This record gives sequence, C-alpha cells and structure tokens, in this order.
Amino acid sequence: MIIVMKPESTQEQVKEVCGVLDSLGLGIHISEGALVTIIGVIGDKRVLNDVPLELMPGVDKLVPIMESFKLASKTFKPEASVVNVNGVQIGGKEIVIMAGPCAIESKEQLFEAADSIKQAGAQFLRGGAYKPRTSPYSFQGLEEEGLKYMAEARERTGLKIITEVISQKSIEIAEKYVDMFQIGARNMQNFYLLREVGKTKKPVLLKRGLSATVEEWLNAAEYIMSEGNYNVVLCERGIRTFETATRNTLDISAIPVIKSKTHLPVIVDPSHATGKWEYVAPLSRASIAAGADGLMIEVHPNPRCALSDGPQSLTPQNFHQLCSNISKIASLLDREYKVD
Amino acid sequence: MIIVMKPESTQEQVKEVCGVLDSLGLGIHISEGALVTIIGVIGDKRVLNDVPLELMPGVDKLVPIMESFKLASKTFKPEASVVNVNGVQIGGKEIVIMAGPCAIESKEQLFEAADSIKQAGAQFLRGGAYKPRTSPYSFQGLEEEGLKYMAEARERTGLKIITEVISQKSIEIAEKYVDMFQIGARNMQNFYLLREVGKTKKPVLLKRGLSATVEEWLNAAEYIMSEGNYNVVLCERGIRTFETATRNTLDISAIPVIKSKTHLPVIVDPSHATGKWEYVAPLSRASIAAGADGLMIEVHPNPRCALSDGPQSLTPQNFHQLCSNISKIASLLDREYKVD
Amino acid sequence: MIIVMKPESTQEQVKEVCGVLDSLGLGIHISEGALVTIIGVIGDKRVLNDVPLELMPGVDKLVPIMESFKLASKTFKPEASVVNVNGVQIGGKEIVIMAGPCAIESKEQLFEAADSIKQAGAQFLRGGAYKPRTSPYSFQGLEEEGLKYMAEARERTGLKIITEVISQKSIEIAEKYVDMFQIGARNMQNFYLLREVGKTKKPVLLKRGLSATVEEWLNAAEYIMSEGNYNVVLCERGIRTFETATRNTLDISAIPVIKSKTHLPVIVDPSHATGKWEYVAPLSRASIAAGADGLMIEVHPNPRCALSDGPQSLTPQNFHQLCSNISKIASLLDREYKVD
Amino acid sequence: MIIVMKPESTQEQVKEVCGVLDSLGLGIHISEGALVTIIGVIGDKRVLNDVPLELMPGVDKLVPIMESFKLASKTFKPEASVVNVNGVQIGGKEIVIMAGPCAIESKEQLFEAADSIKQAGAQFLRGGAYKPRTSPYSFQGLEEEGLKYMAEARERTGLKIITEVISQKSIEIAEKYVDMFQIGARNMQNFYLLREVGKTKKPVLLKRGLSATVEEWLNAAEYIMSEGNYNVVLCERGIRTFETATRNTLDISAIPVIKSKTHLPVIVDPSHATGKWEYVAPLSRASIAAGADGLMIEVHPNPRCALSDGPQSLTPQNFHQLCSNISKIASLLDREYKVD
Repeated sequence: MIIVMKPESTQEQVKEVCGVLDSLGLGIHISEGALVTIIGVIGDKRVLNDVPLELMPGVDKLVPIMESFKLASKTFKPEASVVNVNGVQIGGKEIVIMAGPCAIESKEQLFEAADSIKQAGAQFLRGGAYKPRTSPYSFQGLEEEGLKYMAEARERTGLKIITEVISQKSIEIAEKYVDMFQIGARNMQNFYLLREVGKTKKPVLLKRGLSATVEEWLNAAEYIMSEGNYNVVLCERGIRTFETATRNTLDISAIPVIKSKTHLPVIVDPSHATGKWEYVAPLSRASIAAGADGLMIEVHPNPRCALSDGPQSLTPQNFHQLCSNISKIASLLDREYKVD
Repeated sequence: MIIVMKPESTQEQVKEVCGVLDSLGLGIHISEGALVTIIGVIGDKRVLNDVPLELMPGVDKLVPIMESFKLASKTFKPEASVVNVNGVQIGGKEIVIMAGPCAIESKEQLFEAADSIKQAGAQFLRGGAYKPRTSPYSFQGLEEEGLKYMAEARERTGLKIITEVISQKSIEIAEKYVDMFQIGARNMQNFYLLREVGKTKKPVLLKRGLSATVEEWLNAAEYIMSEGNYNVVLCERGIRTFETATRNTLDISAIPVIKSKTHLPVIVDPSHATGKWEYVAPLSRASIAAGADGLMIEVHPNPRCALSDGPQSLTPQNFHQLCSNISKIASLLDREYKVD
Repeated sequence: MIIVMKPESTQEQVKEVCGVLDSLGLGIHISEGALVTIIGVIGDKRVLNDVPLELMPGVDKLVPIMESFKLASKTFKPEASVVNVNGVQIGGKEIVIMAGPCAIESKEQLFEAADSIKQAGAQFLRGGAYKPRTSPYSFQGLEEEGLKYMAEARERTGLKIITEVISQKSIEIAEKYVDMFQIGARNMQNFYLLREVGKTKKPVLLKRGLSATVEEWLNAAEYIMSEGNYNVVLCERGIRTFETATRNTLDISAIPVIKSKTHLPVIVDPSHATGKWEYVAPLSRASIAAGADGLMIEVHPNPRCALSDGPQSLTPQNFHQLCSNISKIASLLDREYKVD
Repeated sequence: MIIVMKPESTQEQVKEVCGVLDSLGLGIHISEGALVTIIGVIGDKRVLNDVPLELMPGVDKLVPIMESFKLASKTFKPEASVVNVNGVQIGGKEIVIMAGPCAIESKEQLFEAADSIKQAGAQFLRGGAYKPRTSPYSFQGLEEEGLKYMAEARERTGLKIITEVISQKSIEIAEKYVDMFQIGARNMQNFYLLREVGKTKKPVLLKRGLSATVEEWLNAAEYIMSEGNYNVVLCERGIRTFETATRNTLDISAIPVIKSKTHLPVIVDPSHATGKWEYVAPLSRASIAAGADGLMIEVHPNPRCALSDGPQSLTPQNFHQLCSNISKIASLLDREYKVD
C-alpha cells in the first residue's frame, strides 16, 4: 500500500504516520516527490484493514498495490485449480456443462430435462428448489420435495446435481442430496451464507453479484475459502448496466481477467445474463471461445409452460445443437466436450 | 399489461394468446395498428407471473403497465404512512436522525457516541453488532455483547436503538434488544431474510441495494409487507455507478421518485454513499431539502480509531453543527428538528 | 405508442387526449382496464415527436411500442445489408479485419504495420490522423501528413484505408484519401458530424458511444442514413460500467441484439474495450463466435514505443497468430477468413 | 506516478525502467517491498503521456498519484474562481439562475419566458437555437433566427443570454449574439469543439457528459483553458446509470467533490437530469443546499405546447415559487438570491 501525503503536509505529520506503521510491525519507505511525499508500506497489510489512516493529519489518500484476497489469488497459487465434483473435473481439459430447468416443477418435467441433457453430453443437472424471486407473488420452489426428484434423476442418469441454497436451513437439507451448492447472484455478498457453505466441504458454484466487481467477487470466494473449503468455481452471469436490450450485460471480458487473477475455474451462465433464449447459443459459443471452463444453461422440455424464466430456456433440440457447436469450438482450443 | 404481437403474426396466433388469457380469467382488449396488433390484458396480472407468454408463437414482447408491487404502492394507499417506533414517528412532521458508530467496539465508545448524539437531538442510536465486511479478514462485530451495550445506552439516554440483522439467528437475538431492525444493502434481495423480518412485527429499515432499481427496492419492501409487517422505512444509501470519486453515487432523485410511488417513509444515509466525512454535511442538507424524512449518519467519538469506516464518520462536534443546519432547513420546509 | 391514463383520470380527459391524436391524423384504440384506461395510437408516431402528451391532464405515461429508428430497422429491411467498400464486402460471408496502429506516427511505422497485417490476411489498414485524447497534453495526431502516408500504404499493399474524422474540415481532407470514415465513440452523438458524413456517400464505421444504448446507437446510424448515405457499419467497442478491471466492458450480447434489430453489419474492437493486449485474442475469438462480421484490432510494429495506446496493441506476431485462430472459428460458423 | 513491478521481475528489469525515466529527465525513488518492488517517479509526468511503460518487461501496472489536469486544479489555484459574464458574477456570493425554454420556438414564446423569469430574479435567459436531438426526425432548432430573438430579449429585459454551440460554424454565428457559450453533454469530449471555444475569450458553460467521470470532466475544462480561455463554469446534469425511474441520475455528490478538486464554479441542471418537472423543485433545493453556485432550469410559458422537452419544463408560476424557496435556502448558507 502507498500512502500519499497532501502537498501541504508537514514533516511532523509524515513522522506521525510512520510511527503508526512502525507500531504495527510494518516496514516503511519514504519517497519525497516534487509536489508530494509518498510512503510505501511493506509487510502484511491486513493489519491495516481496521485502521483509518486516511484520517491522520496530512494524509491525502491510500493507494492499494496488492489484491485484497489471498487464498483465491494467482500470486498465492499460480497453477490453475481443478475442482473435483464426485468424479467430474471442473477447470481441466474437459468443458463442463450444467443444464436443466430454472425451477423444479415436477418429477416428470425434471426427468424429461435430465434425459435430454444427458444425451447432449452435459455432466450436471441443475434445478432450483429454493427460488429467490423479485416479487413475493411468484412461484418460490418445491423445496425438499424438489431435491428428492433431483436425487432420483441422478440415479436415473448418472448426472451430478447442483442446486441453489439461500439459508442455513436450506444448506442443511440440500447437503443430504446434492453434489454441489450454488450461491446465487443476489447472495454473493450474503457473508453469513458464504461462511456457512465454507464450513461444509462440498464444492460451491459462486455466481457473480449483479453489481460486483471482479475484486469483490474474488473476496466473496475468499470468504468461503477462509473457512477451509477450497472447492470454489466462479460463474459469470451478467452485470447490471444502463443497457436495457438484454436483462443484464454479460461481462465476457471477465473471463480472461479472472484467468489472470485467480487459479479458480470459471463458467458462464448466458441464460440469466440475457433473459432471451435466442441469445443463449451465440453467447455460449463466445464464452467458450474466450476461455471459460464450462457453461450453465437453462433447458426446459417445454419452455412455454415453465413456471419460472421460460423465455430464457432452450428446448432439448436447441440445446443438443448448441452442444455440438461447443464441442467443435472446444477442440479448436485444445479442450474437449463429448456429445453422446 | 400489453402484449405486442410481431408484424408477421397471424390471426390464429392472436386467437391462441387470447385463449390462454381467457382460461386464466383475464379480460382482453385487441387493438389492430397499422403495423402490429396489441392485446391489452385486464384483471389481476399476478396470475401471469409464471406464464411465459413471450414464448407463444407470434408474440413480440410484453409491456407492463402497472407496478409489480401492491401493498407498498401509493395507488393502493395514497396517504403517506407514519411508522411508529416505540413513540418516535418516522414520516411525520418531525425529521428523524439515526446516528452512531458503524460498528460497536466497546461500551465506552458506544456510550460516548450515544451521549453526544442525544445532545444534538438525534432520536435513534445506530450501531453494528453483526458486520457484513467485504473482506473476511476485517472486524466482524461484537454480536450479542454489542446489543447488550446498545440496550444499556438506551436506558442511559432514552434513544431508540437500531441494528443490522444478517440471518435468522441474528434476528432472534436482536429481537430481544432493539427497537428497529435494519436490512443492509447487500441483503436487500436476500428474500429469505426479508420474509423472516416480515414475520416479526418490529419496524424495519430497508436499505437500497447497490444496484437495485426503485422498483426492485419496493418489491423488497413488498416481501416484508406481504408477511404482515407494514412498518417499513426505506433508506437510500447510494448506488453503484462508473464514478469513482465517491464510493457510491447518492441517488438524490430517488427521494421525490419514492414519494410519488409509495406511501412509505424514506431516509438517507450519506455516510455510506460517499465514504468521506467531508461530503456528509452538504449531502445531508441536500437530502432534507429534497424531501427526505430523516437521516442515518455515522458518528464516532474518535473516528481515527474506528475499527470500521472511520473515514466516513463525523466527530460529535461536526455532527452537532450539522444538526443545527438541518433544523433550519427543516423549518423552511414546514418540518421540524429540535437540537437540544 | 400506448398512452396510459392515471387511475383517477376522467372521461373528459380521455376525450381531450383523443382530440389531439385525431387532429394529428392518428388512429385511436381505447381499452378500459380494471384500474386504468389505455389509449393505443395507430399511424406514423413521428408526428408526436414534439408533442408533450405526458403533460395533458389525466395522462400517466407514454409507452413506446415501435422502435424510434426506421431506415436502420430490420422491420424496414429484413435482409442483412452488405456494405461494399471499394470491393471489400462487409457483412457478407467473409470476416473482415481492420488493423493497424492507434495513431499514425511515421511513414516507416505505418508501412511496417501495413505489411505485417497484409500478411495476416487483414483487408483494412486503420490509423489515426486526428486523435481525440482525454488530456490536451497528449499527442494529437499528424493530420493530413498522416493521411498521405495512409494512401501510400494502400498503394503498397492493396489494403483499404480507414481513419477517424472529428470535424467538417477533417471530413473534407480525409475524403480525398480514405476508403471509409470512422466516427469515434466520443462523437457518436455529435449529430452535426453525423449529418456531415451522411452527406458524403463514403462508407462510415460508427463506433458505439461509451454509454449509448443499442437504440441510441441505431438512431445515430439513422442520422447518417437519413442524409442518404446507407453505407453504415456498426462497431461495438465496450461500454462504461462500474467494473474497473478492464477499461470498458465489451458488450458481447450487443452482437446478437444488433443482428435481431437491424440489417446493418457489425464488427467489434476488443483493443479499445479492454485496454490490454493480453485480452484482445480471447475477446476477438469470442466476438466472431458470437456472430460479428469482423474485427478492428490495434497492431503496432513495436508497441513499447507507441505514442498512443501502446498497452493495447498487438505485435505483428501475436496478430498473425490471432488471425489463424479467427480463420478456424469462422469456418465452423460457415464464414471464412483467409490468412495469406 | 508509481510503477509497480511484478513479483517475478528481475533487477535488470527495474534498471531498464529506471533508465527510461532517467532519459526523460524524471527523478526516481525505488522501494523494495516484501513481495514487489515499486518505483516512484518524480517530476513532470506529462512527458510520460505517450510512453507505454506498462509494456516494459517486469512492469505490472502504473498507479497515478496526481491529477491529470493542471489549470483546472485546486492544487494549481487554491482560491475559488469567479467567472464574470458581462457583469454577472458566477461563483461569488450570489446564486445565479439560468432559465428559459429548451428550444427557441418563436419570438412571442421567448419574450414571454424572458419576462417571467426576469420577474423571478433569474440573471440569464437560456434557449436552444441549435438542438442536438436523439432522433433525426425531431425539431432541430431555429438557428441564427433564434439567436436574434435572444438578443432582442436581452435588450428588453437586461438578462444575459446563453446558448449551446455544436460546431465551428455555430460558434462563429453565436459569438456575435450571446454572452456565454454552452457545451452540451453529448459534446463534452468533442475535443475539437472544446479547443474552438477555448480560442474565443467568451465564458463557457461546460455540461458534464452522460458517462463522464469528474476527472474526465475536468480534463475537458482543461482543453478549453489550455487555449487561454479560463472563463469556464461546470454544469452537473445527471449521469447514466441502471436506474430508469428518472431519465438520468443527478450526481449530487459531484458538487462537494468538484469543490474539493477545482476552483471553477459549478451549477446544476435538474431539468435534464430527471426529465420530469415534478422533480425539478426538490432537486433544485437539494443542489443549492449541497453548495452549488447556481441552477439552469427549463421554463416554458406553456409546457404542453413545447416543441422540445415539454415534460421537464416548469410553468412561470412554478418557477417563481421555486425561486422564492431558493432565496431562503441561499440565505441559510450565507449566500443570496433576490426575487424581484
């Protein structure tokens, strides 16, 4: 961290700041410029998290130099992590696709979706049992009953299963059924929830918050990891911008940025990002071409009857077609995805 | 709601859409334009929440006409609501100020802050016991011990007390101590939490999410109200934009917008919005001048030693000065605020 | 357009609104809902552009149904347009790549860049002669001298040449040299400039403004087209969001959105969007995979010595490698790009 | 400026960077941290504007310490500037109000507006003769004829007059008539235009661009000032965010930020920011309470007939009422505004 002093600051003030740093065991490097003096801080700056140096007399501003996360950082662990979810590797050579309905509506709907995505080569079945909906008057999910159907679908197909958790209680219940937890965008900074999934050892898919910077997103991952659970996979799903032509703006640049800052795998959810099924195929192709490790895609046997987010769901036919394209792009990039 | 058909849609397709609306008990009004046909839907559109009409053949898009919230709407209740918090009225003639430290650090710190804000006429003591912090390595709060200090400070000063809750467990504990719950910006769409505070009857201060539209914010209020708790007060605290000169952008326009859309009271937190104490006074004056019902302001007896958000905290002296100015602006607008 | 009346509006007020519409020669369709009355307007709504209907008594709001642009609209011309630039087709089967230095610095630099991009199969040489720079103290361009070098580079290589114009005078000069004009992001709503390039018949590359919606962008295209110049190509180059990890956020979703709303071709500039050369290759691949008709990429023979935007420039070697990848992705999508 | 080296950088690389700085006449200060080495640069960094140091081997990133503008900076000139516009002082004790119609439509309309705003104490008449409109099919302004009416209105009332310029030609014409030029939001980074108004000595009102940071805005002012014209007044008019309840989000925090960074005066335009006349009065009060030096407000004798932006225009009666309130708030803050 760099401390920039005000042009009118005195030598006494510089001394006082250095005194504080010294008392915290930090090293100091002073550089007197033509206009301002700057103080370089050397050592573990986490001891400064709760010290408001900005308020010391003569201090103009603090400029962070290093990232605020550690376990998630590529500086800490340069080689890419592969997260093993009961045998499926995320972040390795193989592209991983998670697909299924937004909400679990019935056993029939779920099984039909599961069978069709299995045929297209997907490795994971997704399905919402606890649905966070903007309006309290929308369908809120089947809860534990839905999870039972998910487990049956796994028996039937061999697909891994993933579902969103929204509270401690839902974690306790879902833990018995699913292979992987999902933390939704609206809960990305629900730090209480992050700690709770961190205490389990189950892999976690962490969606990016609607207005989260990459740095905040990686700090959210750090919350989970700081509890001892290193099995974190990131999921870009669009950010909020002024543009209204799509529901959110898929931040495709975040993929190479993530790859340069962290060792964690990253997948993309183009269904929620755009809100329109017509845009899902081009953006899925783009995501893999940009280097994503996988995709999360909404598939519904009959989107027109979906109780949640029908307009963004692919039919099984469209999904199969998309998977064939993904397979070809993957091989161009020395990765692979097998359509059965 | 208006359903806009595609230019190339057929009469059969229009008929099919009308059939679905009819089967749901909704009224229909067809208007054939020069280029497109539009279908007006009459009745309670909440039955359409889970029906993806956009996917029916020939449909171009849906255009909502009415707001998606009801209990929070001014159409539903035109006169302004006054929320009574154990004798303090929020939304009435009196301007209400909530002040105190970001985090409760010790009994001494809290008492000193409470005494000084009481002298400046504030009606509420705020203080964080459960702190949602971006980094897991920052101070996370004193939890129940802090709430005990809060209750003692109430005994001592007569101030009402408010604290943030972040989980079901923290609600259970805080319920025993505080006069009002606060839902933080990062939890504005933690729908599970909203329902839980809705089930209590204690007044709730609902902060706006960092990237929440006014409509989503009012839908979050609707979640609380739909559980039977109508004692909701809104709190604007800045939104996320591209500007980096302030931590967030205080959306001052939201105040008259809120006043035109809902009957609920609204206060403003300029401390979190800007992150710099120098900007708190001008923005507090602006908020009251724009019609806000109150303020939430960070005050710390010694900001330089604060364990959280020191740079945005006012000293007791600056706070007292600000309250005097607020008192004068309030009287210009036919409202009142008394500095002791 | 739909006119939504207030819940408390009277029949007289509805009548008064209809009177205005009638006097403007517009058709009317009234639909009385359970809560509000809405009035559908039939006919060419452009006569309403300057009539503030929102202010008539009883009117709540106006809801546009149709797009505000016409010549640029896919409704107006459903088949995709191919823009012919002296023999190079943009928007056809072939992927078109425009490459070169941000600013023209010297004849040697330009020729070296031109030779190398020609080898990689690019069809256009780009180079800035008039540079809009954020700071007045940065290099502002070689002006006409630079354009002469561009014309010589065309002689030498057969590449088409494109440059940015920033004023009427620069249009007059550049018209003598270049094959295509570029309108920069900061001038996307410089309507005066748009009309001026519209009066020429030379093809125009129209970059998206930093905070322009797709609709405003297409309205900017409409300005050029309304003067009779239909040779417009769009260029997505990133939008401004809260994220600071990249200079701007490349709006990759805009590509399928543009393809659904307009017949005009669209290319992508990943160099300006991200500001970092490391991200250019993955985002170029993503853009083509998402359906873009081409790319604009900064290439500098020696990026470390570039007088403008060096950090986002590719070396000739990296550019050649990228073009090979683009060629492969293009063929997957039934398009083509030939690396010499 | 600080140069941060990569963790894996070598001593040779540090040396190489220092060599470049040295050759440019800059001072150097090296600080070796636990993880990374940083290099402080001392001297006039403007020589670095066109040197891409980020690309040198071993360099991680550059961190600017000082502002990129100079003449506009408070560091350069600490005392507040007062801009004299033919006798009216902007930035002094008196609050300055500019009012009038968005577009000049006729002599009668303009005179009626001028007479009424004069009565309410306004010092400036505003009126658009050259209108930048989003759609090419909207009314584009009366051009020179409108300016003649403006000059007549000045004769009649003694009001100063201000109009927007959009091109060199419009500057040449307007220069003969108006007291002050206005640069609109969409042209804030039309650097060519900024230089042209900079070459005149007439005062300039510089509106903030829709997505311009405060720093970019001050750099735009720097463009004008670097040509020798120091008579620049800033105008906040709302920025583009995700919120759609208002046309733009008025960035009220920008007022204290501007006051801390520059000596230039700043006024606020709440009419364009919100797009709705109902919100103009509360936001005008808020702007003055936050420390703005004045306001620009749309007033139309008959908003319902306005050819441009009617919905955001105040009637003369509402404007007079607002001015009375502004007068009272001004006196609370030791400033003054006289309603005749």
